[in-house]
Amino acid sequence: MNTVELIRKKRNGISLTKGEIEFLISAYLKSKIPDYQFSAFLMAVFFRGMNDDEQSSLTNAMINSGIVVNLKNVKGVKVDKHSTGGVGDKTSLIIAPIAAAAGVKVPMISGRGLGHSGGTLDKLESIPGFRTNLSLSEYKNVLKKCGAVLIGQTKEIAPADKLIYALRDVTATVESIPLITGSIMSKKIAEGIDGLVLDVKTGSGAFMSEEKDALKLADSLIRTAKSFEKKVIAFITDMNQPLGNYIGNWFEVYESIKVLQGENVEDLLELSLNLAGAMIYLGKKSDSIKEGKDLSLELIKNGKAFDKFVEIVKLQNGDTKFLVNPEKYPKAKFSERILSPKSGYLASINNYEIGMAALELGAGRKTKEDKIDPKAGIIFYPKIGSKMNKGDVVAEIFSDNKTKLELARNKIINSIAFSNSKVKKLKLIKKVLT
Amino acid sequence: MNTVELIRKKRNGISLTKGEIEFLISAYLKSKIPDYQFSAFLMAVFFRGMNDDEQSSLTNAMINSGIVVNLKNVKGVKVDKHSTGGVGDKTSLIIAPIAAAAGVKVPMISGRGLGHSGGTLDKLESIPGFRTNLSLSEYKNVLKKCGAVLIGQTKEIAPADKLIYALRDVTATVESIPLITGSIMSKKIAEGIDGLVLDVKTGSGAFMSEEKDALKLADSLIRTAKSFEKKVIAFITDMNQPLGNYIGNWFEVYESIKVLQGENVEDLLELSLNLAGAMIYLGKKSDSIKEGKDLSLELIKNGKAFDKFVEIVKLQNGDTKFLVNPEKYPKAKFSERILSPKSGYLASINNYEIGMAALELGAGRKTKEDKIDPKAGIIFYPKIGSKMNKGDVVAEIFSDNKTKLELARNKIINSIAFSNSKVKKLKLIKKVLT
Repeated sequence: MNTVELIRKKRNGISLTKGEIEFLISAYLKSKIPDYQFSAFLMAVFFRGMNDDEQSSLTNAMINSGIVVNLKNVKGVKVDKHSTGGVGDKTSLIIAPIAAAAGVKVPMISGRGLGHSGGTLDKLESIPGFRTNLSLSEYKNVLKKCGAVLIGQTKEIAPADKLIYALRDVTATVESIPLITGSIMSKKIAEGIDGLVLDVKTGSGAFMSEEKDALKLADSLIRTAKSFEKKVIAFITDMNQPLGNYIGNWFEVYESIKVLQGENVEDLLELSLNLAGAMIYLGKKSDSIKEGKDLSLELIKNGKAFDKFVEIVKLQNGDTKFLVNPEKYPKAKFSERILSPKSGYLASINNYEIGMAALELGAGRKTKEDKIDPKAGIIFYPKIGSKMNKGDVVAEIFSDNKTKLELARNKIINSIAFSNSKVKKLKLIKKVLT
Repeated sequence: MNTVELIRKKRNGISLTKGEIEFLISAYLKSKIPDYQFSAFLMAVFFRGMNDDEQSSLTNAMINSGIVVNLKNVKGVKVDKHSTGGVGDKTSLIIAPIAAAAGVKVPMISGRGLGHSGGTLDKLESIPGFRTNLSLSEYKNVLKKCGAVLIGQTKEIAPADKLIYALRDVTATVESIPLITGSIMSKKIAEGIDGLVLDVKTGSGAFMSEEKDALKLADSLIRTAKSFEKKVIAFITDMNQPLGNYIGNWFEVYESIKVLQGENVEDLLELSLNLAGAMIYLGKKSDSIKEGKDLSLELIKNGKAFDKFVEIVKLQNGDTKFLVNPEKYPKAKFSERILSPKSGYLASINNYEIGMAALELGAGRKTKEDKIDPKAGIIFYPKIGSKMNKGDVVAEIFSDNKTKLELARNKIINSIAFSNSKVKKLKLIKKVLT
């Protein structure tokens, strides 16, 4: 096939066939198509989009660039969750143990932090010894033994995605719904799942700030999942403020432990119960999401969810002493309380900036080479609508680098706005789509 | 500047500043921007277009990638012509001598054949000894001595165009009006012209088959020329059939000689007089295009135009014996007459296929490495609307490669269609724009 003609075809809005898309992906993976042609193709896809058939073909070609993990020997329904990412979004750490405790199998392949947004792998690695780089056979063994496993993308899984993502990142073709869909779904399907719960976030701390874009992405993800005969439920959720109060890697493990031990962190608990409930429902351990939520709460209350978390950490080589005594985890060298500069109702948060403040403190990476400080982070107390008095503590910030505290403080102060009149609380779960 | 952010800006439909466009072009020329980012930028331009300011900035940056030839020492108004290319389009060979004979200075930098379309340089090089690769000082000298010079693009002139064109060719970003405009105008302005006559072709043998696209391109070229304070006249002309009857390199020189010697090759003469008339008008040697046309015809009749052609060829090292005795030029080894398969009115020609048939015979290149056979070509006799009887000669084809004759014959036969009822002749000059 002629690559230029295929680029021209897509550019002119004519659908590509399955064979043509397979050729493009496999030839690019084998370096038979140069980067400069593939980037022109990606930009044409950005503008022209893809219809359902093309989207399935793209996803399929990306899946087939590697292997599909065979989980036939693991009994039960395999269900994962994917979140589009945000600030303080630690639900994976909470719901994987809950769903596994309910009898669902949870083969979870996660990513690292990206810009203002945290990553599950970085959070887990704040637990000393925790291994996220299991081999595929170790991955299967842990899943079989305890019903859940949390690792990073292996080289066997959708290698085309890794290659294409790196090119998208430097050619302004990241923000394309068919390319995002292919990237997410190829990895998830290659994991060996039967069902998937999606948490598509919208708001100032999300990659899709507009709800209409989040809805489009959710729709594309759902249609693609269905074309591979995977069960799917998507939640559109608010990311205009941090989820829970803790931001930063160990901080998020800490807050997850608290929730698993029954503490009522309102928004975080609500979302976790919904996502876990949906996983349990897709995993056929309840007859509805509602029943799944009830079961989730029960598994928190009777301690089984937390026990499952400890079991997973142990099987993945993590030191469980800090799970049992989280207060003993090392503290950052420096910390500071940020006080409210005025009285009023918290009206808005530039949540992206909160994420960037955490990154500044050491919780994220500016370049791929940067090392993360697991102790660095933010405890952000109020929610939009909270009444604050001048001098109330808005946030506490933690870092081993004293000069970063001032930077982070300024970011946080500049990212919040107050109103003299009452402000409505935000609705956390905006839509549930299937 | 951040290249990814500039690509994203253009992608999102936000105009780039002059400085941003200059950065992109100059950094790409210095290999500081990789091909894969520049091709993504080109595709974004394909979809988003460019406004007048961006178009001027792009053209300016491409001009400034090399030098602008200083023609101050050459007295008179410098006027060139550019055609978007087609089949049998040999007007440059006719109008450059006419305009020069009228006292206009014609600094003409031309290209080679591209696909189905012939190139002035290849045609000129069918004259033994003719040098198209003059240095810039030789270029100025010839222009000064005889008032016209015909060469190929030198490395000093718009080197960014050469680099960008090669990338466009392999990334399906050729067919973009701002990119075509930048490519044409940067080279023409860098030649040192004061005025430019444009022949924008439309129809089955043109690169812009739709008239609306040809009009858009003409409009863009005119606006850009004016932004550089160049005088400009654009003709929109028909390319649904070969121009004149001869297609192929020496064949086109031959037909040009015939026209310069007063032979009435109807369509070719009409277009040549119009283009030369416009050049003479822009060169201030007449008060209107009409007067310029009259003067052109006079210069043909009194032999001055042909003498000028001989003078140019001599100064560029060409052997003039075949100009005086064109019948002595070597003949192709094989030839064949193609007879009309039925009676009727010639209703349509797939003119692209006629050009491709000439290429097959040896008049063009399939790859950059292919050598052109100057003797190869086609004499195509009828025009759309001509009445044909079964067995009339439609065309004669010439090649040194006997097996190619059959291929070319089939292409030609398959590219023509007949009608039983009368068919209207095509209007050659569709519009004149300034």
